[in-house]
Amino acid sequence: VNSWVEVPDGSDFPLENLAMGVGHRGGGPARPHVAIGDHALDLAGISADGLLDKLVGSEFDQASLNAFLALGPSRWRAVRERLTELLDEGSGQVDRLRGHLVAREELTMVLPIEVADYVDFYSSLHHATNLGRMFRPDGEPLLPNWRHLPVGYHGRSGTVVVSGASIPRPCGLRADGDDVVFGPSRLLDIELEVGFVVGAGSERGQSVRVDDADQHVFGVVLLNDWSARDIQAFEYQPLGPFLAKSFATSISPWVVPLEALRPHFTEGPVQKPTPADYLRATRPWAIPLELEVELNATTISRTDFTDMYWTFAQQLAHTTINGASLRTGDLYGSGTVSGTDFTARGSLIELTWRGTEPLMLADGSTRTFLADGDSVTIRGWCGGNGSARIGFGEVQGTIVAAGTKESS
Amino acid sequence: VNSWVEVPDGSDFPLENLAMGVGHRGGGPARPHVAIGDHALDLAGISADGLLDKLVGSEFDQASLNAFLALGPSRWRAVRERLTELLDEGSGQVDRLRGHLVAREELTMVLPIEVADYVDFYSSLHHATNLGRMFRPDGEPLLPNWRHLPVGYHGRSGTVVVSGASIPRPCGLRADGDDVVFGPSRLLDIELEVGFVVGAGSERGQSVRVDDADQHVFGVVLLNDWSARDIQAFEYQPLGPFLAKSFATSISPWVVPLEALRPHFTEGPVQKPTPADYLRATRPWAIPLELEVELNATTISRTDFTDMYWTFAQQLAHTTINGASLRTGDLYGSGTVSGTDFTARGSLIELTWRGTEPLMLADGSTRTFLADGDSVTIRGWCGGNGSARIGFGEVQGTIVAAGTKESS
Repeated sequence: VNSWVEVPDGSDFPLENLAMGVGHRGGGPARPHVAIGDHALDLAGISADGLLDKLVGSEFDQASLNAFLALGPSRWRAVRERLTELLDEGSGQVDRLRGHLVAREELTMVLPIEVADYVDFYSSLHHATNLGRMFRPDGEPLLPNWRHLPVGYHGRSGTVVVSGASIPRPCGLRADGDDVVFGPSRLLDIELEVGFVVGAGSERGQSVRVDDADQHVFGVVLLNDWSARDIQAFEYQPLGPFLAKSFATSISPWVVPLEALRPHFTEGPVQKPTPADYLRATRPWAIPLELEVELNATTISRTDFTDMYWTFAQQLAHTTINGASLRTGDLYGSGTVSGTDFTARGSLIELTWRGTEPLMLADGSTRTFLADGDSVTIRGWCGGNGSARIGFGEVQGTIVAAGTKESS
Repeated sequence: VNSWVEVPDGSDFPLENLAMGVGHRGGGPARPHVAIGDHALDLAGISADGLLDKLVGSEFDQASLNAFLALGPSRWRAVRERLTELLDEGSGQVDRLRGHLVAREELTMVLPIEVADYVDFYSSLHHATNLGRMFRPDGEPLLPNWRHLPVGYHGRSGTVVVSGASIPRPCGLRADGDDVVFGPSRLLDIELEVGFVVGAGSERGQSVRVDDADQHVFGVVLLNDWSARDIQAFEYQPLGPFLAKSFATSISPWVVPLEALRPHFTEGPVQKPTPADYLRATRPWAIPLELEVELNATTISRTDFTDMYWTFAQQLAHTTINGASLRTGDLYGSGTVSGTDFTARGSLIELTWRGTEPLMLADGSTRTFLADGDSVTIRGWCGGNGSARIGFGEVQGTIVAAGTKESS
């Protein structure tokens, strides 16, 4: 299928994608847009112009997607169908639409959603095994709960930032032998993750069935869960990571609708032991995304999301099995995506094996953890071999120096 | 000081308190009120009536306190001064104000704030020591980080509920010998805590000094951090509690302004080792609250908040030392408040020593953990011996049966 808007070869945003984001030009108000090739269509504009019929009210006249997401899956589908018609090469509305089309490079993107609760999982078998080996060399790498449930915890929703936001190096306490030292983190890391955006909420006291995940999840983003390993190591017992993660979490600006990825859904790995009923799906929920991480100008990791042990549908069912409600704008991360290969690991701590095996970058410099000025970019896509490429664009962040000096 | 509104002896809400909450009568819109004795004054009403001069715009014409809280500390003080004048027995506005006065028993209270991020700390030395003894009998009860920083983690803000909300028993996985069993929690517990409400936010990348805590924290509530100990024991390694806590957190409806408690601020316990610079205050921040827990008709715990090892000001400074920003509506819990006495412990797991020493209730029944139908009420106050009693009212919740049956 082709659009009347030119979609360059290899674009992340063909007509089959219709990713949504929120951006502004100059100092104008930020408004929802839908991406098409190198352009984006102003959804507030076409809605005001009557081009979305009565499918939405003022939901696009907002600085986030939340109001639209709250409309729920049948309305998401109806709007998607209408946008597909409007952007199709056979559209009868090209002249009216052109006035609402903007080059994506002219848009300044903001956070696409007001984040309600943010949860981060830990669902890659390879990642959990690698960290277990490093931190508990004498024990079983996987803890007893890991194959029974998708381990996760709540993160800080107020510091979720959009791609391009700079990342000040966090300060905190770390152990240094028997001393405790305060200062900027020395072991600043990334975590390559995929994020899921909840559109339709649920009632407190109810649980969401794993096969109903698509009634709640609207779409998918790339996510970088910046992590300060030295702060984490000192603080995380017994209640989990806090300051090691809460300073920033970056997401990509374009939310790829689950609907665009659905044709690609596939079976994930076999799970043994068989999980509890509430985690058993009757249809496939794994998503074969290809993911890569670039540090400055060097690709340092290439991995595949298909291989994640727990699916996003299982993670959603788990989140609600205790009766916790979902809200529009809830965001959850898959956990670091690591594959079996050394080059398929999604964090520096794994890629450099806790700093013992530095990476060589294209400029000849080496890295164990991130230096000030480093730029990290994550990209991802699905399909593209004979099928439409459903891409995510990128999530990028640059480390800037901490404002505070070290002291002990 | 006296108000023209009658304040019964022993009331939690004299003129010196001026706690704020959000409530509605019948099906009317929920609006901010200020508590005075057994009554409350409709803040939206007096604002619309011009009685707050130009101190606020439409900030009280909202279903939460957030818009008012976002105005910041100088405006909070100005409004407090104005309310003190209006409610004083010398007020010249009694006739106009009477029309905005409502009996508190006629108000249905809702959540006073839209909760942004919710963080829960673990700052009672006695509580942490008790749990360490129970869970790690062979090791040091306190982990090495505990005296260096206020250990904390993020909880679920979407399931913070107001006093009176029923608490469905959560379901989840627990270990049973070598088996993993799914079902309703059998070890459902309370945690007696004090909650702090952030009014004025901060910038990402900046940290808030411990002595500036009152420039950000507006007020204080009672908080019950419901906890499923069996779910927690199985899930919490290595990333902390998730489903064991995320099903519900109850808070009291009336937010007591920090300003009302300030005359009572006192020194907390001596901290050894001396904490890092960013945790050192130059003035006292401990708050001598008296707290008690009632289970059905029996008082099961009486404790004192003064004794908490880490103050709320240190907790706030810690939260931001990594550059994490604060937002209006952030809520953080002190951690379970336990004293040295057996009867001064703030959770059932401590009061019954992991279920080995059941409590006898007034009706002759015994409890280790909570049964369906149990009602838990936490109350708290400050002063009252020669000074004005600054009370919190109460936070109450009743356990209702889980919808799901056990399976393995």
